Amino acid sequence: MASETKKKVVLAYSGGLDTACILKTLLQKGHEVIAYVADVGQQEDWDDIARRARETGASKVYVEDLKEEFVREFIFPAIAGNAIYENRYLLGTALARPPIARRQVEIATREGADAVAHGATGKGNDQVRFELAYAALRPRLEVIAPWKDPEFLARFQGRPDLLAFAKENRIPVEATADKPYSSDENLMHRSWEAGLLEDPAVPPREEMFTLTRSLEDTPDTPTRIEIEFRDAVPVAVRNLEDGLELTDPVDLFQYLNDEGGRHGIGRVDMVENRYVGIKSRGVYETPGGTVLHHAVRDLEGIAMDREVLRLRDMLSPNFSELIYNGFWFSPEMDFIQAAFRQSEKLIDGRVRLDLFRGHAIPRGRDSHSSLYDQELSSMDVAGGYDQKDADGFIRINALRLRAHQLILRRTGDPAATESPEG
Amino acid sequence: MASETKKKVVLAYSGGLDTACILKTLLQKGHEVIAYVADVGQQEDWDDIARRARETGASKVYVEDLKEEFVREFIFPAIAGNAIYENRYLLGTALARPPIARRQVEIATREGADAVAHGATGKGNDQVRFELAYAALRPRLEVIAPWKDPEFLARFQGRPDLLAFAKENRIPVEATADKPYSSDENLMHRSWEAGLLEDPAVPPREEMFTLTRSLEDTPDTPTRIEIEFRDAVPVAVRNLEDGLELTDPVDLFQYLNDEGGRHGIGRVDMVENRYVGIKSRGVYETPGGTVLHHAVRDLEGIAMDREVLRLRDMLSPNFSELIYNGFWFSPEMDFIQAAFRQSEKLIDGRVRLDLFRGHAIPRGRDSHSSLYDQELSSMDVAGGYDQKDADGFIRINALRLRAHQLILRRTGDPAATESPEG
Amino acid sequence: MASETKKKVVLAYSGGLDTACILKTLLQKGHEVIAYVADVGQQEDWDDIARRARETGASKVYVEDLKEEFVREFIFPAIAGNAIYENRYLLGTALARPPIARRQVEIATREGADAVAHGATGKGNDQVRFELAYAALRPRLEVIAPWKDPEFLARFQGRPDLLAFAKENRIPVEATADKPYSSDENLMHRSWEAGLLEDPAVPPREEMFTLTRSLEDTPDTPTRIEIEFRDAVPVAVRNLEDGLELTDPVDLFQYLNDEGGRHGIGRVDMVENRYVGIKSRGVYETPGGTVLHHAVRDLEGIAMDREVLRLRDMLSPNFSELIYNGFWFSPEMDFIQAAFRQSEKLIDGRVRLDLFRGHAIPRGRDSHSSLYDQELSSMDVAGGYDQKDADGFIRINALRLRAHQLILRRTGDPAATESPEG
Amino acid sequence: MASETKKKVVLAYSGGLDTACILKTLLQKGHEVIAYVADVGQQEDWDDIARRARETGASKVYVEDLKEEFVREFIFPAIAGNAIYENRYLLGTALARPPIARRQVEIATREGADAVAHGATGKGNDQVRFELAYAALRPRLEVIAPWKDPEFLARFQGRPDLLAFAKENRIPVEATADKPYSSDENLMHRSWEAGLLEDPAVPPREEMFTLTRSLEDTPDTPTRIEIEFRDAVPVAVRNLEDGLELTDPVDLFQYLNDEGGRHGIGRVDMVENRYVGIKSRGVYETPGGTVLHHAVRDLEGIAMDREVLRLRDMLSPNFSELIYNGFWFSPEMDFIQAAFRQSEKLIDGRVRLDLFRGHAIPRGRDSHSSLYDQELSSMDVAGGYDQKDADGFIRINALRLRAHQLILRRTGDPAATESPEG
Repeated sequence: MASETKKKVVLAYSGGLDTACILKTLLQKGHEVIAYVADVGQQEDWDDIARRARETGASKVYVEDLKEEFVREFIFPAIAGNAIYENRYLLGTALARPPIARRQVEIATREGADAVAHGATGKGNDQVRFELAYAALRPRLEVIAPWKDPEFLARFQGRPDLLAFAKENRIPVEATADKPYSSDENLMHRSWEAGLLEDPAVPPREEMFTLTRSLEDTPDTPTRIEIEFRDAVPVAVRNLEDGLELTDPVDLFQYLNDEGGRHGIGRVDMVENRYVGIKSRGVYETPGGTVLHHAVRDLEGIAMDREVLRLRDMLSPNFSELIYNGFWFSPEMDFIQAAFRQSEKLIDGRVRLDLFRGHAIPRGRDSHSSLYDQELSSMDVAGGYDQKDADGFIRINALRLRAHQLILRRTGDPAATESPEG
Repeated sequence: MASETKKKVVLAYSGGLDTACILKTLLQKGHEVIAYVADVGQQEDWDDIARRARETGASKVYVEDLKEEFVREFIFPAIAGNAIYENRYLLGTALARPPIARRQVEIATREGADAVAHGATGKGNDQVRFELAYAALRPRLEVIAPWKDPEFLARFQGRPDLLAFAKENRIPVEATADKPYSSDENLMHRSWEAGLLEDPAVPPREEMFTLTRSLEDTPDTPTRIEIEFRDAVPVAVRNLEDGLELTDPVDLFQYLNDEGGRHGIGRVDMVENRYVGIKSRGVYETPGGTVLHHAVRDLEGIAMDREVLRLRDMLSPNFSELIYNGFWFSPEMDFIQAAFRQSEKLIDGRVRLDLFRGHAIPRGRDSHSSLYDQELSSMDVAGGYDQKDADGFIRINALRLRAHQLILRRTGDPAATESPEG
Repeated sequence: MASETKKKVVLAYSGGLDTACILKTLLQKGHEVIAYVADVGQQEDWDDIARRARETGASKVYVEDLKEEFVREFIFPAIAGNAIYENRYLLGTALARPPIARRQVEIATREGADAVAHGATGKGNDQVRFELAYAALRPRLEVIAPWKDPEFLARFQGRPDLLAFAKENRIPVEATADKPYSSDENLMHRSWEAGLLEDPAVPPREEMFTLTRSLEDTPDTPTRIEIEFRDAVPVAVRNLEDGLELTDPVDLFQYLNDEGGRHGIGRVDMVENRYVGIKSRGVYETPGGTVLHHAVRDLEGIAMDREVLRLRDMLSPNFSELIYNGFWFSPEMDFIQAAFRQSEKLIDGRVRLDLFRGHAIPRGRDSHSSLYDQELSSMDVAGGYDQKDADGFIRINALRLRAHQLILRRTGDPAATESPEG
Repeated sequence: MASETKKKVVLAYSGGLDTACILKTLLQKGHEVIAYVADVGQQEDWDDIARRARETGASKVYVEDLKEEFVREFIFPAIAGNAIYENRYLLGTALARPPIARRQVEIATREGADAVAHGATGKGNDQVRFELAYAALRPRLEVIAPWKDPEFLARFQGRPDLLAFAKENRIPVEATADKPYSSDENLMHRSWEAGLLEDPAVPPREEMFTLTRSLEDTPDTPTRIEIEFRDAVPVAVRNLEDGLELTDPVDLFQYLNDEGGRHGIGRVDMVENRYVGIKSRGVYETPGGTVLHHAVRDLEGIAMDREVLRLRDMLSPNFSELIYNGFWFSPEMDFIQAAFRQSEKLIDGRVRLDLFRGHAIPRGRDSHSSLYDQELSSMDVAGGYDQKDADGFIRINALRLRAHQLILRRTGDPAATESPEG
């Protein structure tokens, strides 16, 4: 990493203070730097970011719109597969990292670059997610991670050092106030951590939320929508009041964000376990993702076989952990996805929901592939269900339990129940 | 079951039309019937029920208050163990069955009875839960389940037959209107199924809910509470505004029910998979249980080790399934509980929550056994965390991924990424 | 089952005493019976069996050679997926049931039959396997299972009753001596149970084994073979001494049976848990299957990614249980197989083994898709492995453990280690 | 690690060339070194090792006999819990590391030492196992690992450098020939890796094995033994021919090693996955452990409940992985062990085995807590098993499968079976 030769480097550049300074330090070492800006749905002025990258010295700037692939290839499969980290976090940041890293590697390949660089810190999850993705996609590509470079760390010990460096080097940076926490935003969510949030006893400040309204301020009437799924993927969202229908993945997801957010849906405040072994306080807003999560779980209720659900739910924690830890591009993820795609084949149908006061409440569901319906009930008539069968079913299931109790008694185990049966 | 001799039978008697008629038919067969009424927190006039049982002909009536053991031995461990069936149902009915069946078996033993009887139907889960518990606790005890007896089924083909039989035999039954669904209530929850709910496309009617207010009618300000846990079990609930503190298990749980219900917390509408292979629509109100569930998950965030959480969450679906299917008294449940008790040893501390508009929102947590805190952060200073370490950590984790990609390329696998590396 | 109308029935007919008598009783009830004989590799005179079925009164006889589909679609995928029931049984009988049932259902469909019949008993696993397969493939097909019909059971209370009935009705049955245990044979294995084996304290008699030599009598020199796999399926078996090469699935498997059996490979004596809740003593001979099992596990060593192996091995017990319990044709099996096929894509290569004294001993393996080889080692040179990386890897992994110990000490937990660190 | 102050260091000293040189280099840096020699059953001249440590300059030498705690606390619980890494390796080296590290930490505490040191390399598993154990037991103890210290690595690039250094510094080392592989030995096993074994296509050389005879040379008659277990732990081993009985844990295990080894039991040759992400070829001899493993699995057959076995086997791969990776002292291991101890409570009884030609063949088993026996069979008579029950059991289990097939047909899914049922 401390290589002294001139290199061509593709830097994941956000336009913020950190990556602007990183760009400059790479140039000062004599490298050629291509700035790569990934649009995964965050609110930014892309032209301005590109302009600033060029002014700072980037030889070339790529601004890449990744929103559609982010939604189609990452968000939708994750929600279909019941991806929730540690029972609560819907993985909005973790899911954005693989498409960002993939495009960065593609650009590096196209440009014949020697290295890729990122501005993630050495204590977080993102460094892992970026670097594992690079390794998986281009095993021999060099990685430059200044926030783990002792020299860089010694030089920039805090935000004031970065600001001084930027001023000194006339790096055009946006005049943003120092925030009392750090944040990440994309199409799926907004996350908050560090700073004031470091004390887990202190609740988040209401003013920091931008995607979701406070529960005090949400509308007094629900928004009624219907989501249609094919293979567990949303193919249409309809507003049941005004007749609006959206079928484009990005549009429908954005609509769920807007309406979900207006109703205060999808806030989470938790302490989670990072891959690097540290516990970390995270606060999230995931409005559209939360709505979809509830909708697809509800549809599974009528359309997924019980034992398939058991196996899927047995693997979902692994699936979630792989996403969180940065193993999207891995053979084990391919293994899980092969099974999940199989389980999603019949998850077709419509779920109607009320979005209201922080809730996405299922209000009815139907499916052509429902395992719950008239025809199957009539199967009962055809001899499918006889109350007597239940007797046999229970007695056979009870055999083991009877045997166990008899053994406990015979061996004088204290767990044996008292009994007049000797 | 078609035994013709006179027997002494302990009947689980609810005072409703079904078990009243069952009591009578058992007497008509010449059996002696002891009526056993279990108080698991449902709203009833126990004296009146006992009186009616006697008038119908029960030789003896037991009215047993099981609330405390229900809360201590079943509800609290279930919530601590993250028991949720199919991602949504907190198992209120399933958890009440084992204490009811256990006491029934104890009475049968004390009374020297030959059989136990219950009024659960042949298509539901409760028959299984009762009968597996009987088998596990008294392997050779006879079970009488009239709703699976062809003779009984032929005689009583619907509610009118039962009403006619009750009238004819002067069985004192409460004059309840025919409800468009069936319901079960106890300290933990109220459930609804069948009737109008059989169509999964139709939402539940607002008027049927009794434990939770409609989201339209909840208070405009949150109730702020603090729950204190020792070994993942709540030992105190405090209202942070009026200073009320409750420490008795039943009292504190009832308080969470009342306050949670007032804020509309804990409604679920889902299609679930019964153990007998049928999909079934269920609607639930679980106010206090839902509050506790969120609180203990939140405390785990700071106090449970990551890998312990992984293993616990790997077994939680099995734990939930065992509860749902009626295997509370089983060697496999003992296995799981032994591990869970170990995992709960350090889950001590306090969680503050706002109960508001259907949500139980964690607003801060602290714990003497927190794995997230000052001292541990200062451990970093002592050399515990070095950014450079992350480099090694990632590179070692990436080795496998690099090797896999190189193999894909060498074998010409279509999943290989394009690469200039040859 | 007690239907009184004349039906067309397809009976799974083995030519043994039981199914011969069943054939006759079905005819006596006025049904038309088509005898279906499945050749899954057992040693039989098919012409003679067919002749006897006709003489007993079958309107038609199907003798179906299922060996190739049994090997290709069932044996090979099971071994590739590490199917072992309760750590020991390679599932030879369980794997033969789905192809037998599938063909029976196909014949029933072709012949427009009303029902299928089988001769499995009411306490075993095979009844479940047959009937679940029928239900999965033709949900509304009637099933006739005389060994669970009270009338039939009352009539035939033992072998003498069957023999008397056969004699009386001039049913041509082979004059076989009464065996002190029952047995099942097919291409994959021979199983033994019941009779003398019911006492688990008594070892099996040496004379009953037919597929494997006693360890006392195996050759004094090994047979050296090489097995070549593509996608975890054997595509060639080579004798490294005489140059023989076999590539046909049935031929190569039969060869492994012959050579494996000659060397005494694949005997198992165990007490297993039946699906119907009973423990059962089983003795098995699975020579070829055991050789393949060891070979493919060995190849996985060099060619399967570690985390894929973890996930595959996490699902293998479920896979084995589904096979054992009769759920081959089920949505949950499709789920598992989708993942397993993904995991088997790179399991290509050759394993050399010595077959000797009951062992199949790997003596070397190579693979074009090996994750263990020269090129990957040279990757180390390219910066893939630095001893320093291990330090970071370990320190990051140790963070949690350090924190846990510090908490134990702070809370005065008795599990804390003594320490001078205060 | 590059600390320059004088320290008191407890070095895990084996008496071999590596740790002898490490001892010297530590002294040359000005540290005080206490040599700690762990006797886990390897064949050594302890007095000679201690003498050489002193001559080299150790201020103190501890020779600690850990055999009994190794057997009782590590080997027996591992075998009871079905610990096998990647389906084959019984974990002999991995299990010895925690007791060695624990005593080293205890000595460091007693001596008021500043650091512990070990001689494990930077690419292997042992460094991880030692350092994780140190971290878990004494979170703030300094660790010195010369084989990951760049300075040390630069100085000693191979065996010749070590030999030269030893000669130069008059370090008394045993004159051992350079071996074409490296080996580790303890009471449980002997392992081999590296050198000639690095090519997975090459079989191990017969002459390297020391604990097990070649299959060509094993006795022509079996040794017949009986092992008695209480709570899944062996409490007695009996030779059924000469009447010898051993009850001391170390003695009985050593006897199983001797007899097992004489019969060639317990060799494994495999490619395994190291925790540090590298595939590695390992060859093992584990005679006694293999015998015990087969015996306890066999006893579980009659004495362990089916569903307990399922759950135990679901966790065994995690258990094995924790052992292999070095997490013996961890909260997740405590979690698993709590469950396992519960599952082992009724695993009491006797298993008779023939040790013969590389096999430990169960020849009969009995248990006071057997779930397979007379009394339970007579339970059948008491109504426990009715063939009719199986019908109900199967029909209820088939409901899901029927519904699934009907859905496939309705949706025109290609996986639907052809059917005349429309």
